Amino acid sequence: MAAGAASDQSWKSRVDSPLTDETIAEIDAWWRAANYLSVGQIYLLANPLLREPLTREHIKPRLLGHWGTTPGLNFIYAHLNRVIRERDLDTIYIAGPGHGGPGMVANAYLDGTYSEIYNDIDRSAEGVRKLFRQFSFPGGIPSHAAPETPGSIHEGGELGYALSHAYGAAFDNPDLLVAAVVGDGEAETGPLATAWHSNKFLDPATDGVVLPILHLNGYKIANPTVLARIPEEELFELMRGYGYTPYLVSGGFDGEDPIAVHERMAWILDEILDRIAEIKRGAADGTLEGRPAWPMLILRTPKGWTCPTTIDGHPAEDNWRSHQVPLADARDTPEHTRVLEEWMRSYRPEELFDESGAPEPGVVALAPVGERRMSANPHANGGLLRQALRLPDFRDYAVDVPEPGATIGEATRVLGTWLRDVIRDNPSNFRIFGPDETASNRLSDVFEVTDKQWDAERWPIDDDNHLARSGRVMEMLSEHQCQGWLEGYLLTGRHGVVNSYEAFIHIVDSMFNQHAKWLKGSRALPWRRPVSSLNYLLSSHVWRQDHNGASHQDPGFIDHVVNKKADVVRVYLPFDANTLLSTYDHCLRSVDYVNVVVAGKQPSPNWLAMPEAIEHCTRGLGLFDWAGTEVAGEEPDVVLACAGDVPTVEILAAAQILRERVPTLRVRVVNVVDLMRLQSEGEHPHGLSDREYDAVFTPDKPVIFAYHGYPWLIHRLTYRRTGHANLHVRGFKDEGTTTTPFDMVMLNDIDRFHLVADVIDRVPGLAAKEGVLRQEMQDARIRAKAYTREHGEDIPEVAEWSWTGSTPAGPLSTGGDND
Amino acid sequence: MAAGAASDQSWKSRVDSPLTDETIAEIDAWWRAANYLSVGQIYLLANPLLREPLTREHIKPRLLGHWGTTPGLNFIYAHLNRVIRERDLDTIYIAGPGHGGPGMVANAYLDGTYSEIYNDIDRSAEGVRKLFRQFSFPGGIPSHAAPETPGSIHEGGELGYALSHAYGAAFDNPDLLVAAVVGDGEAETGPLATAWHSNKFLDPATDGVVLPILHLNGYKIANPTVLARIPEEELFELMRGYGYTPYLVSGGFDGEDPIAVHERMAWILDEILDRIAEIKRGAADGTLEGRPAWPMLILRTPKGWTCPTTIDGHPAEDNWRSHQVPLADARDTPEHTRVLEEWMRSYRPEELFDESGAPEPGVVALAPVGERRMSANPHANGGLLRQALRLPDFRDYAVDVPEPGATIGEATRVLGTWLRDVIRDNPSNFRIFGPDETASNRLSDVFEVTDKQWDAERWPIDDDNHLARSGRVMEMLSEHQCQGWLEGYLLTGRHGVVNSYEAFIHIVDSMFNQHAKWLKGSRALPWRRPVSSLNYLLSSHVWRQDHNGASHQDPGFIDHVVNKKADVVRVYLPFDANTLLSTYDHCLRSVDYVNVVVAGKQPSPNWLAMPEAIEHCTRGLGLFDWAGTEVAGEEPDVVLACAGDVPTVEILAAAQILRERVPTLRVRVVNVVDLMRLQSEGEHPHGLSDREYDAVFTPDKPVIFAYHGYPWLIHRLTYRRTGHANLHVRGFKDEGTTTTPFDMVMLNDIDRFHLVADVIDRVPGLAAKEGVLRQEMQDARIRAKAYTREHGEDIPEVAEWSWTGSTPAGPLSTGGDND
Repeated sequence: MAAGAASDQSWKSRVDSPLTDETIAEIDAWWRAANYLSVGQIYLLANPLLREPLTREHIKPRLLGHWGTTPGLNFIYAHLNRVIRERDLDTIYIAGPGHGGPGMVANAYLDGTYSEIYNDIDRSAEGVRKLFRQFSFPGGIPSHAAPETPGSIHEGGELGYALSHAYGAAFDNPDLLVAAVVGDGEAETGPLATAWHSNKFLDPATDGVVLPILHLNGYKIANPTVLARIPEEELFELMRGYGYTPYLVSGGFDGEDPIAVHERMAWILDEILDRIAEIKRGAADGTLEGRPAWPMLILRTPKGWTCPTTIDGHPAEDNWRSHQVPLADARDTPEHTRVLEEWMRSYRPEELFDESGAPEPGVVALAPVGERRMSANPHANGGLLRQALRLPDFRDYAVDVPEPGATIGEATRVLGTWLRDVIRDNPSNFRIFGPDETASNRLSDVFEVTDKQWDAERWPIDDDNHLARSGRVMEMLSEHQCQGWLEGYLLTGRHGVVNSYEAFIHIVDSMFNQHAKWLKGSRALPWRRPVSSLNYLLSSHVWRQDHNGASHQDPGFIDHVVNKKADVVRVYLPFDANTLLSTYDHCLRSVDYVNVVVAGKQPSPNWLAMPEAIEHCTRGLGLFDWAGTEVAGEEPDVVLACAGDVPTVEILAAAQILRERVPTLRVRVVNVVDLMRLQSEGEHPHGLSDREYDAVFTPDKPVIFAYHGYPWLIHRLTYRRTGHANLHVRGFKDEGTTTTPFDMVMLNDIDRFHLVADVIDRVPGLAAKEGVLRQEMQDARIRAKAYTREHGEDIPEVAEWSWTGSTPAGPLSTGGDND
Repeated sequence: MAAGAASDQSWKSRVDSPLTDETIAEIDAWWRAANYLSVGQIYLLANPLLREPLTREHIKPRLLGHWGTTPGLNFIYAHLNRVIRERDLDTIYIAGPGHGGPGMVANAYLDGTYSEIYNDIDRSAEGVRKLFRQFSFPGGIPSHAAPETPGSIHEGGELGYALSHAYGAAFDNPDLLVAAVVGDGEAETGPLATAWHSNKFLDPATDGVVLPILHLNGYKIANPTVLARIPEEELFELMRGYGYTPYLVSGGFDGEDPIAVHERMAWILDEILDRIAEIKRGAADGTLEGRPAWPMLILRTPKGWTCPTTIDGHPAEDNWRSHQVPLADARDTPEHTRVLEEWMRSYRPEELFDESGAPEPGVVALAPVGERRMSANPHANGGLLRQALRLPDFRDYAVDVPEPGATIGEATRVLGTWLRDVIRDNPSNFRIFGPDETASNRLSDVFEVTDKQWDAERWPIDDDNHLARSGRVMEMLSEHQCQGWLEGYLLTGRHGVVNSYEAFIHIVDSMFNQHAKWLKGSRALPWRRPVSSLNYLLSSHVWRQDHNGASHQDPGFIDHVVNKKADVVRVYLPFDANTLLSTYDHCLRSVDYVNVVVAGKQPSPNWLAMPEAIEHCTRGLGLFDWAGTEVAGEEPDVVLACAGDVPTVEILAAAQILRERVPTLRVRVVNVVDLMRLQSEGEHPHGLSDREYDAVFTPDKPVIFAYHGYPWLIHRLTYRRTGHANLHVRGFKDEGTTTTPFDMVMLNDIDRFHLVADVIDRVPGLAAKEGVLRQEMQDARIRAKAYTREHGEDIPEVAEWSWTGSTPAGPLSTGGDND
């Protein structure tokens, strides 16, 4: 079924077939089989079905993996299988606890998906052997629910994002149930602690359902967990305070028969799904009032459930010691080998697999069919469902630029007009996410056609503030949430943008890492279909932090991003409205990238008309012939290069001063909008060849490069280029607090006056000839600084500066005496 | 009073003096004065006391600042002043909401601290004028509670860390009350959402008290806040679920007289402090059982309280529109100028300031005296209280290294023995923080003398797990909490270490940024005394992620750190136990730095005996003469350089192969332990001069550099060096998932075989002569890879490799036939 379409068949109430002992037995058989296959993955190289006595040679030499969380994950999976079948639920499973890999793989193997995707791991004894061997083995699969794991959209290596991903998946999927298992370790992280509040941003009618399952297994690596060590009533209050209706299933302790726990779990799960169905019906027929207290489940079971109770005299089951590999010496200690065999035989493998080694039909009877299998659900391979956006022609939104600098615009505001119509034309598969900054970042035209989705209380005062139960803009003051929601939304086949102040985006450095690595991993898997790129729009950037100050300023997210694999990351620095439009159109069409776009929101000159903007962005960098003083056929004396809107203004102002004052100097002006063009072609697919690079930057002339961010990044990208020794970069060097825009550039030595001085200092012979101009530049800085300190605003000669292509004009001709 | 000492006088119950109208009037006068001074800072350049009609010229040309949160912060400050006086409380104030600067400055001015520190801003009309002018003005002070703000340890520019800082300040300060105001915007962030759980890590007897004050002012930049838009009962449940006893004060809406709100606030604050005193008494006399439900206050007041109700027909007070500057055109619109004057006169400045412009005595009567003033409390200028650690002589913990590589050690485990005794000798001002990884990082010897502080439930099963109400190790699965607690602990004058897996430390990139900027800011202020450095110990590093896999691997925290100001950051890569001991001794003695130390925990050769280790670490880099084949007085043919433990092993193995196979080649081996040595001396205080650099790395010989992290960082640090064109760096390039250690280095081309091939390729003439060896290296890689894929462990020739200083030995002589 297409994403977004509602079905009458969904959300059935309890099917009137009481739980039978047979059903419970089926659940238990599945669970035992999944546990057996999980333990096997961690320990065994051979003898997968224990058809001979276990010996040292059957056991892996390096035991890597995590048992602790696995039986709980398998338990939940088995129970979900039953309700999916009974209610025909469209369900995906998010395994929040780290290292849930063996369990998720085991379940995908049992329901058949695994062998369908990886044909060599077939349903036979040999297939089981290969399944075991590959796990955490060189050349094999990792221990998380990685891209390689069918049914996964959440690797969970670093903890904290299970619920954000789950809600992101649920948005605009009204028929989807996202079962999100939250480990009690993960629950201690900040991002997870706030992600519970996602329920205030979910529309019960047009979005799907997230069922959070807090798995209290009690321990982390070496400690108890916080939520397992507060009174249950306190935990209930916490969950009610988060806006949920908590249900509890607890069991398996002190040797309790799992059958009894299965019965309680099945019963409660039916209760929960009935309540969900009731809410969904109310939302569909309009009788639901206010925000529902969605159910959530607290599942309290022993960590490492069903492993040996004690090992070497220490508790193992229900203890932190079962976190990783409970029998660490299983290979080299005969007693451990024996205990391992006993442990594995406790699952009764002889009942689970037939002669050929395939799972017995009764064991896998619980599996849903086809795409209802959680491992095969297309929402968990979102590229299968992805529809390209209907994009209005961005050229229709161009600002008029009769000549360079002739008009002024706020780049992101112009982008907002186009995004408004992107939303209009794509009402159910595109969203904008941001931490309360969408309007501040000047995208507010989108509110002509949509609202901010908000299911907390709405008051009359909000009438003009575009809050509604349903809307395309998602704002919560948590960059983690915004990014996590977007990731979940993208990985289930939709499109989006996250907008943020540049200074705050380091908050999600680590999330970016994981998403980039996920993309790298899934690109290597033919069965994973491409998903839309993760698009950042970073505004309120480092040069225009007038309202904020030192603690906010940092343009280093770009540095962080370019450390990741070149085939996944793209960085763009459009410098005006039309280049931003052209860039963003490209980003919204792309797949499997992370696109970082830094763009200004303040009034700034428009430099290029749309045809030139498109050509410039297509090339990724280019010459501003209109700003230089080159003579055709001759090499310039100096190259002035720039990347970023503010550096572009300063470079152009410097070029203007030079044109006026040193008219014989041959100046080339280069702008770089696609930062990856600077790298070698061997390092990045966008990289220029050395020949192309030299043709633009010259092999031997001085290059003065004004860059948006930390200057050394430009060196890091170009250190192998021929002319690198002549490259001199100005950028942000962590100077400046709340002050005026021009004071900011002066504090970091990237202002026009300093750039002109740089040219004089670096073009051979110029310093001797232009000593007066050099001194004048120094004086201009002193004058500008003094004026700013005196008046609290920028000196008029720069504040009111405008580019004139032909007439000599500019700062020095208008500067008065400011002493 | 010294930190940590308990006082009989603290924590008085209610003083038996009922609240009088006079006291309430005093509170209100203070509040009006603070509000007046806050508005003045945002708007006025001149006419500070409104002694003439307000005109355009009196108003700042650029209005920067945030009014919205300020009246609430001032309200709380005024009320705290009363209870501090009445109960003689030792109190600091943490202003969580961003942009609280004007309020905090106003209060510090009123209580006299500001003028004591900044003498030119005296208590006169001229002083008030200067106070106003400097705010968010070029060359002035920023809009946050920055280092420049007396009484602040929390800048709050980026939101989320108020409570973590507050608890960090309270640890080991049993008499300290930390009033922590949490904005309802900030409360949406992940780090803040989990920071509430800090109460499970506080010892009521030996730690101080945190009073969280959740300030529900209802709005963020452009949206309502989540916690202000859930039913109050739900919010109460949330707070009870977090383990607090919530109290509510709500008022000021719809024109309610503030006097009535003052009365309720004063009454509730007394209730709260009585309850706190009761808990503290119980903790002191041993009658307190279990974890107390500490009080917390929910204060619901209108955003922008007391500003104009509406502006230009839009609501201002109690609306998101009062977030920043409610009258944006105050200068250029006569009507706005008039409204501003009316607004400011509503505080009745004529009653607040005397003829000279000094605050009237009745207005500031509420101020506590001396160091009881929150702005002057020495805990908020922790360097005043800081006592140097008593450090046991680290040389006594040295491992025996009769010759290089002769013994094997786990570096961090050895460090743990020294840290154990650091804890023993410093029982109340040193703590170790970590997200559940202290034991995993092999520091477990510390548990011989201390415990993990844990005030959630302790069960009998924990008996061997070192959980106790009081202890020196703080473990919660939130890197944000760990770092935030440590920052609060350091800024109040104590010492500590945060240990983490290297892969997860990007989670706190943004927190690191802010702390580094705080240090940079406070170093410029003579009155701020130096605080202990923030010490990171990053283990389980990128080369040894056997249990984890791709999603965890990233050594780029170093790249992030070196973007910050050189005078604040230090990066060390000790490569064995003795160099780690020497490095950490240095770190724990240092002040005002961020020290990043990356060190291995896996068994690895010890290379240097302690005297050599000390010499090496003191120099920061040096030659391993014993590994090279230089001839005295001659330049080497090639330099093999390394930084980090695993790269050092691979470089030494490569050197061994070369010594054996190409004995005539003159090889120099260099190790870099202090990464900042590579930078130019102009860039970093630790930087080598070019002459020194050339002496070590040669100006013109090939340098093969094996580096722990992303290779381009080495280029970024050295691109101006003479021999940079000959520098060839191998490092982590984001390859590899769960596999063996040697496979990891092979996947990233930093293995010994590849390094030897690099040498052959780069030493002029060598490729022609050593084609056979070149091929052999290639074959060795293929063989090692095949063995690993086959056996699941590293090929014995590398797994069992050991350095032999004199005897030719090593991989190729032991390699068998592995086909």
